[in-house]
Amino acid sequence: MCQLLGMSGRRPTDIQFSFTGFATRAEEHRDGFGVAFFEGRGLRCFVDTRSAADSPVAALVRQYPIKSRAVLAHIRKATQGRVAVENTHPFVRELWGRHWAFAHNGNLVDFQPKLHAAFRPVGETDSERAFCWLMQELAKSHASLPTVPALTETLRELAPQIARHGSFNFLLSQGDALWAHASTQLHWVVRQPPFGAARLQDADLTVDFAQLTTAEDRVALVATQPLTCDEAWTPFRPGELRAFVDGAPQAQDDLR
Amino acid sequence: MCQLLGMSGRRPTDIQFSFTGFATRAEEHRDGFGVAFFEGRGLRCFVDTRSAADSPVAALVRQYPIKSRAVLAHIRKATQGRVAVENTHPFVRELWGRHWAFAHNGNLVDFQPKLHAAFRPVGETDSERAFCWLMQELAKSHASLPTVPALTETLRELAPQIARHGSFNFLLSQGDALWAHASTQLHWVVRQPPFGAARLQDADLTVDFAQLTTAEDRVALVATQPLTCDEAWTPFRPGELRAFVDGAPQAQDDLR
Repeated sequence: MCQLLGMSGRRPTDIQFSFTGFATRAEEHRDGFGVAFFEGRGLRCFVDTRSAADSPVAALVRQYPIKSRAVLAHIRKATQGRVAVENTHPFVRELWGRHWAFAHNGNLVDFQPKLHAAFRPVGETDSERAFCWLMQELAKSHASLPTVPALTETLRELAPQIARHGSFNFLLSQGDALWAHASTQLHWVVRQPPFGAARLQDADLTVDFAQLTTAEDRVALVATQPLTCDEAWTPFRPGELRAFVDGAPQAQDDLR
Repeated sequence: MCQLLGMSGRRPTDIQFSFTGFATRAEEHRDGFGVAFFEGRGLRCFVDTRSAADSPVAALVRQYPIKSRAVLAHIRKATQGRVAVENTHPFVRELWGRHWAFAHNGNLVDFQPKLHAAFRPVGETDSERAFCWLMQELAKSHASLPTVPALTETLRELAPQIARHGSFNFLLSQGDALWAHASTQLHWVVRQPPFGAARLQDADLTVDFAQLTTAEDRVALVATQPLTCDEAWTPFRPGELRAFVDGAPQAQDDLR
């Protein structure tokens, strides 16, 4: 199965520490990886068909401190679609003058949605089909960029229609918010003052965030499995969809 | 002014040699750079707001031999739009299930086209507006992916409508072909058997392509200014639009 990593930050934050632990998991998932960084409205997406454990692109991401308020990363274990750049997550499309990035962990069976609008898959994966359908349905539901709560409400209607075809853990962002949906496994944690130290589960590395942060910092992380062994990660419930903004989970009943 | 570099290859080819010379020109164009590599239908786009002369992303591109049959690169000297990721070329959109990449050198004045369809600018540049308008008009002209000659014909109708607003040198690709349009300056050259040596104009580097190539190789390069001093670069005429496929320029009268 693939692995997901997402970040929402109150201030532009680099993810070198978390990505280092995350990339270690690539040893079992050698079919490519990708990371999308939102920088303001801009988006940079680094992908490679080589494993994050030995890819020069992953080495760049580990070493170059790109500061971002929303990040999505994915390590691929191919289930549908060849090992190829066009099948590598995150996938990116533009809607309402904003870039959208999407990464999926899971497997959708017999999911062949009607894609009659402006979003067509380039590759062969169930994941990109799901993303194109989400974009198409969002575009139908709203004439221009809606608020985060309104988008969350629409996504809560759409996600179960895909999830009935199989496992559908996904991350989605347009730069302002990070949406995360779990059908089988996903965990989240918030790092905020007072900051402590954290030790990676997968690599012999500890960071004392108190040394690296200010009182204004706050970061939410979402990952398939907890990345650190001394932070309180919360598991998603099956079917749960959460929006994270400025490093904090949004209330689940925003609109009620 | 910005600088453009494009490549069309008969076989997947790396552009490390040409990019090394091209990146040297970044010393006068410090407002970011970008390179888009098509790998089959897949697309990888590396961008940075730092100069190609000292960016870690540019260092990766110089060192990592990504093999591609179509490449677009751009070094930015900001005329319209801040120095920001969303204003950095190449710009990318999806149309007909294919990725399209676009880079522009020039300056368009009072170009505010009606963008009423599925392609909206994310950043603030005249260049991204021009790209969105081209995508919108291509989508209106063809129901699905047309042949390269048919696309060339449509682009020959569209490009002059933008070029009347200013200088409009551009590169465009969907992976199968590289289109290049000049309004002020652009040059092209084909490297094919028998291969010789070439020396970069901008860096003290010579490559003997005979040592690196096979009889099946053929590469067309397009650049704002010739990159090498011992190859016969052909200048584009003002208003000329050319398609390159499999490393060769297409006949200018394909459709007549």
